[in-house]
Amino acid sequence: MKDKTFLMIPGPTPVPQSVMLEIAKHPIGHRSPEFSQVLKEVYSDLKYVFQTENDVFIYTSSGTGAMCAALENLINEGDKVLCLVIGNFGNRWAKIAESCGAVVEKIEVDPGEVITPQMLKKRLDEDINGEIKLVTLTHSETSTGAANDIKTLCGIINNHGALSVVDGVTSVCAMPCKPDEWGINVLVSGSQKGFMVPPGLAFLTADEKAWKVYEECKHPSFYFDWGAYRKSVRANSTPYTPAVNLICGLNSALKMIKDEGIDNMNARHKRHALALRAALRAINLKLFVENDENASYSITSILPPEGISVPDIRKILKEDYDIEVANGQNQLKDKIFRMGTLGYVCDRDLISSVGSLEAALSRLGHKFEKGAGVRTLINQLNKG
Amino acid sequence: MKDKTFLMIPGPTPVPQSVMLEIAKHPIGHRSPEFSQVLKEVYSDLKYVFQTENDVFIYTSSGTGAMCAALENLINEGDKVLCLVIGNFGNRWAKIAESCGAVVEKIEVDPGEVITPQMLKKRLDEDINGEIKLVTLTHSETSTGAANDIKTLCGIINNHGALSVVDGVTSVCAMPCKPDEWGINVLVSGSQKGFMVPPGLAFLTADEKAWKVYEECKHPSFYFDWGAYRKSVRANSTPYTPAVNLICGLNSALKMIKDEGIDNMNARHKRHALALRAALRAINLKLFVENDENASYSITSILPPEGISVPDIRKILKEDYDIEVANGQNQLKDKIFRMGTLGYVCDRDLISSVGSLEAALSRLGHKFEKGAGVRTLINQLNKG
Repeated sequence: MKDKTFLMIPGPTPVPQSVMLEIAKHPIGHRSPEFSQVLKEVYSDLKYVFQTENDVFIYTSSGTGAMCAALENLINEGDKVLCLVIGNFGNRWAKIAESCGAVVEKIEVDPGEVITPQMLKKRLDEDINGEIKLVTLTHSETSTGAANDIKTLCGIINNHGALSVVDGVTSVCAMPCKPDEWGINVLVSGSQKGFMVPPGLAFLTADEKAWKVYEECKHPSFYFDWGAYRKSVRANSTPYTPAVNLICGLNSALKMIKDEGIDNMNARHKRHALALRAALRAINLKLFVENDENASYSITSILPPEGISVPDIRKILKEDYDIEVANGQNQLKDKIFRMGTLGYVCDRDLISSVGSLEAALSRLGHKFEKGAGVRTLINQLNKG
Repeated sequence: MKDKTFLMIPGPTPVPQSVMLEIAKHPIGHRSPEFSQVLKEVYSDLKYVFQTENDVFIYTSSGTGAMCAALENLINEGDKVLCLVIGNFGNRWAKIAESCGAVVEKIEVDPGEVITPQMLKKRLDEDINGEIKLVTLTHSETSTGAANDIKTLCGIINNHGALSVVDGVTSVCAMPCKPDEWGINVLVSGSQKGFMVPPGLAFLTADEKAWKVYEECKHPSFYFDWGAYRKSVRANSTPYTPAVNLICGLNSALKMIKDEGIDNMNARHKRHALALRAALRAINLKLFVENDENASYSITSILPPEGISVPDIRKILKEDYDIEVANGQNQLKDKIFRMGTLGYVCDRDLISSVGSLEAALSRLGHKFEKGAGVRTLINQLNKG
């Protein structure tokens, strides 16, 4: 059925109608007092969502733009960067660091696994001369559905003295992520994820320690230059013409997030992800990230049952149940499928998704107790 | 009156309702076959509008992002770049080139003036060792309303051998701009201008000569990397999650441009700009760019009558006639005001604007023959 698709991909995620209606309004002048007022509210609300006292910048770009905005304002040619890689997006940090001329070293684990505190501590303890300037991390790894223990890892990095630069693209809003409290030096995210806004905006916040490193950066990116953005944020403005409509939509979405409360929003994502995981296990599906402790609350990766293909599952879900789930990326293509529960998702969405997945798998010949998925889901959701 | 503002600023410009309605649809997955089909149409139609056989890239960014995308893929530290500066946006090229580590030399004229072929030829003739690698130019200078003769200037640059990199942000769609025919090596533009789409997308096209220089670039920008975008364009895709909604709106806007025809669209802008200029002169206003030959067809800069302030003119136009015109920028603030006739503008819009300006100036005590502006405008428009 056309125009009824429910997006369960890890982004773009479902957008509330009230947000879409804001976006649908004719753009206003980006230097008008009206838009300045919108920016004032948005900048303030972003600090609430990011749980920081530092400025939060809005870039008109993809989430990858904000990742570039992080490293291109910090790295000088030859700087040593340690990249903690648990999937494609961890690897993207490494590629960006290399594009800045950094000497990149990786700690890499198999897809689905996470970086343990021991691994990181061992490597940083060896760095007795403090050569490692910066460590990149991924909070929720969108390509696998695994999530690092950012709080502990950033604590270890702080003790060493390097900067921690965290990809919070699919974690901010969905999982507790507290830069000021945990000592995350730079944190980035994107609009089409937990923020419930279409793609086109990305966010970055940096603390004073990161600003000191910025001041030593010889060629900060012009488009993403922190200095220009800080000046603009403090004047309720933007350095260049931003995506006005998306920012008006963001203003509306941030009000919804404040109404729900960021802690409640985090708790909703946890409740949904854990209930979904239990439901999937109840219909004999194997989860790619086996341990709930290492699981993202925004994306769940699932192995297809033996003899049933990922494309067939996705095709039936899309064509007959109007649900779009994601394939695996790169080497995980056709090996896993991914269900997003990120942003504007309610209990009913989960019930319909698990029910539809049961229907699809049943038609594809998968053996399981019919109804066990929805029953388990409902029990878990009711437990809270 | 709320929600009835007519944007006569140089961007964002008026957006057709059909485009806004496309943007208002819920985003679809950026890796879906449906979105790939949208991209296929958009990439093909962009080549039509840019009048080129080369690929046209879509960046999710401000127009300034595309300017960075041009230079950050071409410049190595120490490269010599000649910047032809006729206003703020010409100067922005110089700042971006400097941020890339280039050695920048400027040919600069007073605001309102243009670069003559003689000035450029003299400097390039002196460069007997071919040290100048790249020349940046502005087609329509948004800050002043002057327009360079890009065809002639790019011909001179081609003879020298340097690359020509042209800011077509407010010229593409509004003024003839033919990269393949004129030998423009790199051309950039933005969605919120002649394209009749809200801000958030920027465009870049480069020819084979520019690609050879790209291949020698040591640290091309990761986010704006030409190589990644070329690969994606040819697969009807994008490297990162783009502003899906804006691209769906762009698809609709490009169909309107094709229906009108790019030559007709250029001719409409010329007809509008020249009629507006005649009308403004008829009500005793002085134009900042005196010679019609040097005038942009998308922005007209006007000096306020003696004793009447720019803020007063703008305030009355906005509050009582729902028309937003732009102030001057930087050193031209309060010295000029700027009327955009860019993109989705019809004869009626011009008639109401000139009439409203007559009403405002009349209330502010300006001496002129009432009605002469609208009469002159209509006569000129009827002449075609």
